[in-house]
Amino acid sequence: MLLSERLAGINLGGPPRGLLHTPPRTKEKARTQNTDNAPSGDFGLIGLAVMGQNIVLNAADHGFTVVAFNRTVSKVDHFLANEAKGKSIVGAHTVKEFVEKLKTPRRMMLLVMAGKPVDDFIETLLPYCEKGDIIIDGGNSHFPDTNRRTKYLAGKGIRFVGSGVSGGEEGARYGPSIMPGGNEEAWPYIKDVFQSIAAKSDGEACCEWVGDEGAGHYVKMVHNGIEYGDMQLICEAYDIMKRGLGMTNKEIGDVFTEWNKGVLDSFLIEITRDIMYFNDDDGTPLVEKILDQAGQKGTGKWTAINALDLGMPVTLIAEAVLARCLSSIKEQRTTASKKLQFVGRSNKFEGDKAQFLEDLEQALYASKIISYAQGFMLMQEAAKEYNWKLNKPSIALMWRGGCIIRSVFLKDITAAYRADDNLENLLFNDFFNKAIHKAQPGWRDVVAKAALLGIPTPAFSTALSWFDGYRTEDLPANLLQAQRDYFGAHTFHIKPKYASDKYKVGENIHVNWTGRGGNVSASTYQA
Amino acid sequence: MLLSERLAGINLGGPPRGLLHTPPRTKEKARTQNTDNAPSGDFGLIGLAVMGQNIVLNAADHGFTVVAFNRTVSKVDHFLANEAKGKSIVGAHTVKEFVEKLKTPRRMMLLVMAGKPVDDFIETLLPYCEKGDIIIDGGNSHFPDTNRRTKYLAGKGIRFVGSGVSGGEEGARYGPSIMPGGNEEAWPYIKDVFQSIAAKSDGEACCEWVGDEGAGHYVKMVHNGIEYGDMQLICEAYDIMKRGLGMTNKEIGDVFTEWNKGVLDSFLIEITRDIMYFNDDDGTPLVEKILDQAGQKGTGKWTAINALDLGMPVTLIAEAVLARCLSSIKEQRTTASKKLQFVGRSNKFEGDKAQFLEDLEQALYASKIISYAQGFMLMQEAAKEYNWKLNKPSIALMWRGGCIIRSVFLKDITAAYRADDNLENLLFNDFFNKAIHKAQPGWRDVVAKAALLGIPTPAFSTALSWFDGYRTEDLPANLLQAQRDYFGAHTFHIKPKYASDKYKVGENIHVNWTGRGGNVSASTYQA
Repeated sequence: MLLSERLAGINLGGPPRGLLHTPPRTKEKARTQNTDNAPSGDFGLIGLAVMGQNIVLNAADHGFTVVAFNRTVSKVDHFLANEAKGKSIVGAHTVKEFVEKLKTPRRMMLLVMAGKPVDDFIETLLPYCEKGDIIIDGGNSHFPDTNRRTKYLAGKGIRFVGSGVSGGEEGARYGPSIMPGGNEEAWPYIKDVFQSIAAKSDGEACCEWVGDEGAGHYVKMVHNGIEYGDMQLICEAYDIMKRGLGMTNKEIGDVFTEWNKGVLDSFLIEITRDIMYFNDDDGTPLVEKILDQAGQKGTGKWTAINALDLGMPVTLIAEAVLARCLSSIKEQRTTASKKLQFVGRSNKFEGDKAQFLEDLEQALYASKIISYAQGFMLMQEAAKEYNWKLNKPSIALMWRGGCIIRSVFLKDITAAYRADDNLENLLFNDFFNKAIHKAQPGWRDVVAKAALLGIPTPAFSTALSWFDGYRTEDLPANLLQAQRDYFGAHTFHIKPKYASDKYKVGENIHVNWTGRGGNVSASTYQA
Repeated sequence: MLLSERLAGINLGGPPRGLLHTPPRTKEKARTQNTDNAPSGDFGLIGLAVMGQNIVLNAADHGFTVVAFNRTVSKVDHFLANEAKGKSIVGAHTVKEFVEKLKTPRRMMLLVMAGKPVDDFIETLLPYCEKGDIIIDGGNSHFPDTNRRTKYLAGKGIRFVGSGVSGGEEGARYGPSIMPGGNEEAWPYIKDVFQSIAAKSDGEACCEWVGDEGAGHYVKMVHNGIEYGDMQLICEAYDIMKRGLGMTNKEIGDVFTEWNKGVLDSFLIEITRDIMYFNDDDGTPLVEKILDQAGQKGTGKWTAINALDLGMPVTLIAEAVLARCLSSIKEQRTTASKKLQFVGRSNKFEGDKAQFLEDLEQALYASKIISYAQGFMLMQEAAKEYNWKLNKPSIALMWRGGCIIRSVFLKDITAAYRADDNLENLLFNDFFNKAIHKAQPGWRDVVAKAALLGIPTPAFSTALSWFDGYRTEDLPANLLQAQRDYFGAHTFHIKPKYASDKYKVGENIHVNWTGRGGNVSASTYQA
């Protein structure tokens, strides 16, 4: 099935469900261009770059009359005269006109660059808005900005929504994953539009209310971080097959074809297969000609930084972001490649190649499970830290279709959280517990062989180290605490089973390790 | 040799060197308490916690008359009546008195909690200061605060210095590592005090001017990040010996004793040896009773976040910080230890144990080289980003003695940067280049065996993956760029050797991978 068909699939069905509080739409009227001054618009969108245009077309396909505006107004006319022609799409040439053409409470979505442009457009809209109107930011805003805007606009009686939208241009056109959060009062009014235009998975819309304030953008941020991780894992598998096993792109493509029929079935594996098979005009694989400097736009970095800020061990996304950084210093790597040679006790793959490819599939699967487990741990902690209600089964469902990380895998995660909304960790769910145990032997062999062969596997390796650390009751951090107490009098706690009158549970204990020095605990020195 | 002797060693020698622009000190006068109103103080210190008291005593030992103040004034009197008794130390009971007792240009050091207390004390001092006076912040301030304060105070004619101080309480007393940066005009006036009280390494003071604005605190931050890395590496080695090889603490202590005579000779290995041998009253090793939840105070986290912000692949510090985070969720790990079992094709160490211990030493050494190489890459990038002049050989020298990461190793790094201040990477220096090549086979075996045995080695593993990535001219990021172009039209560049009329070097290229979709590049969607 073609990607566009898969995306469109269930999405172009009957009319969208009507909803409480939503003004009824007259379909006949919606299909005509607005000719008088009575507001006819069901939904307004500002920002006609590729994503914006496609969301407008998508909404119009679902029977909504959409009002479109763009700062460079010529783009509005061009859009109306071309892509939007004959559809229930109305143009506006000023912000005032844009607002006036919308029925109240107005549903106005911004799809502009994150940052200042969002604030600027909000200020431009405000003078024309009425209490109860809804402003939606559908860009990739950083969640603290969305927190701020939600509060600011609530103070003015405007309901603000920060919504993640994922799926690239095709997703926007035929059904993206949509992750709205913010002022929950807005949800009953936007639910019909959003769930109509969103991707569907087994008949369910990949859009649900995520949570308060910046929760929607937060979840989109973690989605992007996980996307970084998934991509890095696939790159490592490709590198191992290419350099470790000496396989051709056609052979590697065949492996991804197989993997796409099993537990790894997903959009990213599917496009990797396509990429492996895609030849340039000269009949050689185009991918091999592409410069290996990975770009990034910050959302993966935000996730890693937020994990550090919250003290959550989200190692896989961090390694994926740092792997992109390493790739980007290509010039220095080229110098290094001449100065630093491989030295090892064996540099050739030995063993059963078919078995190793099975191991590799298991390594990728297991590492992916770890990455998602880490991602959900992070969201759980964020909900606690920021006092948000987060809807975990819905998050998994939203990522199930439409977005870049969509996969069969997310169906299993949805099932896990539906079975137990309070599941402490994905690895404690029966399905994933069995999966990770089954994957272990192969996963270990892949990490070991890559180390011996000199193929970098930062994401596979960190996933395994994390798993081995996570399942360890007694980590060597006891030594670390002893060191900190030794040099900085930072004190330590006793393990409950060794508690005594001398060393009580929960007490800050300082020991004079050297027989010298004082018994003063550190108060300003930090380590 | 005892630690205090080692620290004190060369430090308690002759009188400090006099310096240009520095008011001459009259030694006889310095030894008497201040009785009249004429300013007699050479150096003032605010904040009499353990670090502050020790710095005061250290400076007095070197012939300076020190004026001491503390917000809780009773602490001043207690200090004067006890530790400070009979030394050239003068107390002040108000900020006004503190300032008035100092000769101009006044040299005033704050050793108070980072953050607001620093700003508050600056504001309290300002009304009494004269143009040209010097305020030094010796706490663990975050470098952006120091940037801000340097500029703010320069505008008022006050020379501000932000200085890292490392070495714990013993270091402060007998010779810390001091890393001053900020307003360079201050340096000639503080050099004598700082270099007198600093640790000495082969006769050289472990204190030099670091660079502009927050550069001193920045270097201290990276120092702390590296400290996190060193400690994590030692913990992993200990864990491998304990759980992987089943060794006793005494046996592990013997290994650290040996290591401390070789390339790993350092303060942290030395104290780890002591800790391994340190028994509780019941004759069993105390370290085994310590709760394995690592604390942290933020400087390691700052380093990792800054690396992400600057796009530098500082993976080892990031993993070390995240390993502390993982250790801290002990309750969840305890649950996990019951639900997640080891599965592997072999779970027992097989092979030559003596050889493996040699390999382990090499793994630790190699990983440490990688960590320092990453740290210096970060500082190099920071200097570029923030437009600082950074003195690389001096940084290595400052870390050579006095501080927590002091080691023989840093002597080799000092030599490397002295031989070539523009050295692009530590691994390109002959000495370290040979070392990393020699270490490789053992390092690879340790990482592979740990993966097979189920012992977590996040730091060893990331170091090896980074090394293998860094020495690779063509990383698999070409696939990543193809994926980004496929789903988000993010474009890619061509490898120069494949450039053609169709695909030009440096051009943003977008390919229609599916034969569908448009040729529009993404403008708002971010991935």
